[in-house]
Amino acid sequence: MIRTAILGASGFVGAELLRLCASHPELDPVRLFGDSQAGLRLDAVHPQLALAYPDLVIERYAPDLLDGIDLVFAALPHGHSQRIAPDVIARDIPFVDLGADFRLSSAEDYRTWYKEEHAAPELLSRFVYGIPELHREAIAASKTVAAAGCYPTSAILALRPLIDLVDPDTIVVDAASGVSGAGKGLKDETHFNSVDENFTAYGLLTHRHTAEMEMALGGRLLFTPHLAPMNRGILATCYAVARGPCDPLATLKAAYADEPFIHVSERPPSTKWTFGSNAVHLTARYDARTGRVLAIAALDNLVKGAAGQMIQCANLMLGLDEVAGLSRVGVCP
Amino acid sequence: MIRTAILGASGFVGAELLRLCASHPELDPVRLFGDSQAGLRLDAVHPQLALAYPDLVIERYAPDLLDGIDLVFAALPHGHSQRIAPDVIARDIPFVDLGADFRLSSAEDYRTWYKEEHAAPELLSRFVYGIPELHREAIAASKTVAAAGCYPTSAILALRPLIDLVDPDTIVVDAASGVSGAGKGLKDETHFNSVDENFTAYGLLTHRHTAEMEMALGGRLLFTPHLAPMNRGILATCYAVARGPCDPLATLKAAYADEPFIHVSERPPSTKWTFGSNAVHLTARYDARTGRVLAIAALDNLVKGAAGQMIQCANLMLGLDEVAGLSRVGVCP
Amino acid sequence: MIRTAILGASGFVGAELLRLCASHPELDPVRLFGDSQAGLRLDAVHPQLALAYPDLVIERYAPDLLDGIDLVFAALPHGHSQRIAPDVIARDIPFVDLGADFRLSSAEDYRTWYKEEHAAPELLSRFVYGIPELHREAIAASKTVAAAGCYPTSAILALRPLIDLVDPDTIVVDAASGVSGAGKGLKDETHFNSVDENFTAYGLLTHRHTAEMEMALGGRLLFTPHLAPMNRGILATCYAVARGPCDPLATLKAAYADEPFIHVSERPPSTKWTFGSNAVHLTARYDARTGRVLAIAALDNLVKGAAGQMIQCANLMLGLDEVAGLSRVGVCP
Amino acid sequence: MIRTAILGASGFVGAELLRLCASHPELDPVRLFGDSQAGLRLDAVHPQLALAYPDLVIERYAPDLLDGIDLVFAALPHGHSQRIAPDVIARDIPFVDLGADFRLSSAEDYRTWYKEEHAAPELLSRFVYGIPELHREAIAASKTVAAAGCYPTSAILALRPLIDLVDPDTIVVDAASGVSGAGKGLKDETHFNSVDENFTAYGLLTHRHTAEMEMALGGRLLFTPHLAPMNRGILATCYAVARGPCDPLATLKAAYADEPFIHVSERPPSTKWTFGSNAVHLTARYDARTGRVLAIAALDNLVKGAAGQMIQCANLMLGLDEVAGLSRVGVCP
Repeated sequence: MIRTAILGASGFVGAELLRLCASHPELDPVRLFGDSQAGLRLDAVHPQLALAYPDLVIERYAPDLLDGIDLVFAALPHGHSQRIAPDVIARDIPFVDLGADFRLSSAEDYRTWYKEEHAAPELLSRFVYGIPELHREAIAASKTVAAAGCYPTSAILALRPLIDLVDPDTIVVDAASGVSGAGKGLKDETHFNSVDENFTAYGLLTHRHTAEMEMALGGRLLFTPHLAPMNRGILATCYAVARGPCDPLATLKAAYADEPFIHVSERPPSTKWTFGSNAVHLTARYDARTGRVLAIAALDNLVKGAAGQMIQCANLMLGLDEVAGLSRVGVCP
Repeated sequence: MIRTAILGASGFVGAELLRLCASHPELDPVRLFGDSQAGLRLDAVHPQLALAYPDLVIERYAPDLLDGIDLVFAALPHGHSQRIAPDVIARDIPFVDLGADFRLSSAEDYRTWYKEEHAAPELLSRFVYGIPELHREAIAASKTVAAAGCYPTSAILALRPLIDLVDPDTIVVDAASGVSGAGKGLKDETHFNSVDENFTAYGLLTHRHTAEMEMALGGRLLFTPHLAPMNRGILATCYAVARGPCDPLATLKAAYADEPFIHVSERPPSTKWTFGSNAVHLTARYDARTGRVLAIAALDNLVKGAAGQMIQCANLMLGLDEVAGLSRVGVCP
Repeated sequence: MIRTAILGASGFVGAELLRLCASHPELDPVRLFGDSQAGLRLDAVHPQLALAYPDLVIERYAPDLLDGIDLVFAALPHGHSQRIAPDVIARDIPFVDLGADFRLSSAEDYRTWYKEEHAAPELLSRFVYGIPELHREAIAASKTVAAAGCYPTSAILALRPLIDLVDPDTIVVDAASGVSGAGKGLKDETHFNSVDENFTAYGLLTHRHTAEMEMALGGRLLFTPHLAPMNRGILATCYAVARGPCDPLATLKAAYADEPFIHVSERPPSTKWTFGSNAVHLTARYDARTGRVLAIAALDNLVKGAAGQMIQCANLMLGLDEVAGLSRVGVCP
Repeated sequence: MIRTAILGASGFVGAELLRLCASHPELDPVRLFGDSQAGLRLDAVHPQLALAYPDLVIERYAPDLLDGIDLVFAALPHGHSQRIAPDVIARDIPFVDLGADFRLSSAEDYRTWYKEEHAAPELLSRFVYGIPELHREAIAASKTVAAAGCYPTSAILALRPLIDLVDPDTIVVDAASGVSGAGKGLKDETHFNSVDENFTAYGLLTHRHTAEMEMALGGRLLFTPHLAPMNRGILATCYAVARGPCDPLATLKAAYADEPFIHVSERPPSTKWTFGSNAVHLTARYDARTGRVLAIAALDNLVKGAAGQMIQCANLMLGLDEVAGLSRVGVCP
């Protein structure tokens, strides 16, 4: 078994990593790190994990506790993993980070979008951007992967194969996310009574995931995220002006024909088909009336948009079966 | 009291008209028409109305039953009110129709989008398009009003004052609706387990409300509706390429400064602020990075998008206070 | 107009009082008191109220600010209104309190259930328990009313008329509430992701509303509250051993035949029929197999369980129409 | 691999069996039977299964199609499997039925509760009642198992170990279920707009699952089911008069100490902890004030209440690891 440490174990992504590890044949979570909840038993923080991990306790992070560890997952707010990455790299442990810290290739872009100096800019070039469908070999060859964000994964998977068909400077990404994307912290915006029976937009013009999408797709794009009254799921509806008549559905089908987690179909996808799984469902259209391409992606923000993608990357990095521990079937209904 | 008849009383909009009439000082629903549920007591169909209307019964429509009626509301599937309108017009009764039958100004557009011949094309020019904020005087002067659809009301109110700031051929309307917009009929798509914890797009490229939006805004636009897991509410997020730097928020504020039901603010609106009310909340932005205008509208599809707008139109037509019977406060939470 | 002050204006019940006052012919909210949000404009705290009250500001409470006020509503956490009541009473202003402070008739019961000494025990006997259907004359004759809690209102209205048919020591009240009953404060338990798609029990054996129910119904009863994934609504399912064969449905119908807000029917009630309204829907059964009476009540915890009941009481106290400003029609769907 | 046939593959339980089989090491669904949807590809009916089963087609049942099958699961409306069981038994194929047909041990009870004559009463005694925690050896030794219903599983697991502590004739079971328990058929009651933001009781005094509970627990009990606005999950809150002071929590902990899927804790359980998993979470209390025992169970009605329990039974019958293919971790949030 692969001795696995999880930083950020008390959050939603931490819990999801633990859920997925519980049915993974190789990954064995042996160290859980958390900050405010250090010292608590895991089942006090995540009761749904009580039967699978009756004995785990959340610890406060210290570098020495990484000794003997075979794999590190980090699911921390941005700004944190750039401080911890040197500890992991020094020990030569395979490291999959979900923070934004190592996703952008330039420290300047990081400063622009995250409004702070990067603490370890010299490490940026070591990290591979973690979307296996686009960077499979590079991930397999690397020890440091920055798993892509939830929104970018959806928009990039929908648009990347279509990018030659459109003008990338005309891309609009309009996406809706379930509330778990906002994390477990207590905020007015995520109080049940704020969200339930509500639909709203946020982060107008300024959402940081724009930077990742632009890095992967080229061009200047406008991204508007929305909050939908549901636990999980992202649906990204993407628009771009076509260079000419085209068949984007056929292009997507061809691009992803051999992908284990991607399904392309004419039917508009539902986030629910992906709930709890690593699946992505895609469709696309060319609209002759307006000369636009429309592409839509659905995924589970906590799985393919976070913990599942991390495990898929780790499987590649460790030479395991890429699909180990990952479901392709949404929990539905 | 104004003796009011409601066609389509057993549907969601019919029920909402009855709810609003119960606190309207003048409108008295005396005849309810329904088809499959004719003969049933109102409280058997809509138990929530039992205390307000203990004695009403749903009847099968016959023209003679309009005798003595002062106002007719029709909330029927498209294709039906074009057959009933002649009865109402012959009796010279003020008529507010929510169907699509008399919204488009040309029978050809109707054929294109609704895939059928119009049965009363000669009546089309008599109808005023029912958005009071845009056509107040015409509505007040008319006896036949075609209240606007739910999606078009949201997009048109968000974009109409901004139309000179943008290229209308670049408009994209990306909207999400609560499920009541799909009506009370039983379909797989509106089964609770299909919708709950789900977000999906539908009607790709072909939704009929596109025609109304294009009629009101000019230009060719691309409209993508989505279904959100909630009862009510529409949020329309609208994009267009700006003709140059501009301040669309100030433009909206100026345009709607005196409107009783429209609130413009920098804060991104939430559908929940409008729940059960006739209110519309708007915001807008100019994005210098991409040269686009972003405008967002929130409303309750069953009130400002249907029954409330019908009553607002009727108030104008009958010389009543425009806001009579209509709340401006969302039921929140 | 009746100059009305609201203590606790930044909470859910405060907002609901303001929503109801907006369509009340007489009540004019002129002073809003809040603590943490004092100094903010009302629309910053409750955007859904922006159109109805564009100019109101939340103030920090001071006794002098009650001068010139005609009516005081208090919707504060327990323990607070016992400190403010003397100010109101000294000014002889009609006062409707929603806190638990003056509901129980004995200071000893207060100590037992609320684990603290009552600060104004001498005032307890001045307050009438505010359920108009049970204490209409006393409320009309009083200047100080302690409006009943949300759960007690549901259980008491369901069981009070049946109490002679059953052994009161065998009552079990099993109720589910929407989340707004837990208030606007930020807690793990009311994070959207804790509640959505979840159903749970809480307050086992010890919920404080038990005391109110026992006071009104006699006997020792067991009450188990549950949290349902919805904004509003309480459904109380009540069980008791019958003294013998009986017809509790007929008894309820007779008891409430003339009540404007209570509807008794054979059909099991839905909380949704009451959403946003002051209505209560009831049913009951006698189960010959087990010799039990079953009675079920549905209401909106923020209206008949809070703000609506407060206004109904105030209407009585001020000699207004008891139903003024209160809807009997649930917002449905 | 074990060649598995599923009757009722187009329903919710059928889909859930397929989801669970997709991560089961041994069960291979090779034949899917459905009625109205025979002839359709599986992904047309259950798009979430498209990636896992790209080639399966739903067929119309015929006995010959069972030839070569190693295991039969039936998830059919009651009345159907009693007609098919003889085909399965004749072929000596292990058979797990989820219908009500073979759960009750007497044809007379079946007639009383299901209002029809049983078509194969002679087979009733062959079937073992399928709750592995209570009948593990009998299930392992049998070829015909009638998996318990969703509500009975919850109430029986909560109360069975406590039965000597209470008077079984005083049991009240008050339970809430997610909507998937009502199946995929189109009914007004399961339209999204009927259920969302609603909580209601149904089946008052007469729900058929009462019979199963009485069979397993002894005594006459009163059961009231409720519908909660969520996809999945049952919470059963159970009451009974205690024979004397007792510690039901300790009793439950002792009874289930070695069970892989049952977790007993002082914390009131949430249905969400079990979502998508075969876990059951339990708590219990003795209330000295009223002399009652309170016991609460949470489970996923489609897993431990249906498909998961079927697979757990099949694992036992086939000599596989009892937990194969079954998660103990709820998908949370």
